[in-house]
Amino acid sequence: MYFRLHPRLAADTLPIGDLPLCRALLLNDSRFPWLVLVPRRENAVEIHDLAPDDRMALIEEIARAGAALKKICGAEKINTGALGNIVSQLHIHVVARFAADAAWPGPVWGSGGAVAYDEAAAQDFGAALARALGADPLKE
Amino acid sequence: MYFRLHPRLAADTLPIGDLPLCRALLLNDSRFPWLVLVPRRENAVEIHDLAPDDRMALIEEIARAGAALKKICGAEKINTGALGNIVSQLHIHVVARFAADAAWPGPVWGSGGAVAYDEAAAQDFGAALARALGADPLKE
Repeated sequence: MYFRLHPRLAADTLPIGDLPLCRALLLNDSRFPWLVLVPRRENAVEIHDLAPDDRMALIEEIARAGAALKKICGAEKINTGALGNIVSQLHIHVVARFAADAAWPGPVWGSGGAVAYDEAAAQDFGAALARALGADPLKE
Repeated sequence: MYFRLHPRLAADTLPIGDLPLCRALLLNDSRFPWLVLVPRRENAVEIHDLAPDDRMALIEEIARAGAALKKICGAEKINTGALGNIVSQLHIHVVARFAADAAWPGPVWGSGGAVAYDEAAAQDFGAALARALGADPLKE
């Protein structure tokens, strides 16, 4: 199975682990608890490009990501989005939102510059997310 | 089955038809070809609130909406999002994006004021979308 993460996605994130379909990544922006799910499929750009079985896996992994963020962070709302206007490789954002956060009630996309995590904080948060997601170590 | 559309969603949209799970609506903003899918389920706020069978239906209807917009409008990219920071009733935006549109490459959410459709144009576009989606007349 071919899978190569777009360099821009790789640069902006820290790997969390693999779910049955997607690689789960932590966006390196401490302003928002923010997962990115990338289906390990070649040339997928739109959700409707995926095979039906992969779409079923995708929505379950989106639900797992939202529930994990809600459990760990106590999010007031989960925001989910697949945009891809800049990086076309299919990737789904799942973000914990709070009424006190830096962009509320607007979208997180395009809402100012990222604030990188402290390295130890990112590792701790990533490990907690991996456990809550039931993610496996990276498969490939 | 209880279903009541939030008044804000009703005010901002024109009904297209019903899919097996969702009511399909056309957002009344002629700047962007923009569908809104609302699961006909009581008290659903997050995707992970839906039962697994409903999630399966939802992802298929998201794929149908994206493919329909791509076919009718020749969209360069489909943007899909479930935010709900303002209206918490679960609703999914599926939007046709173009490099020449008013918000590219940024998100459509929070990108300035809506420009209402001319009534005849909205009816024609809504009818074309209903056909492409295979939507039924409103069920309830």
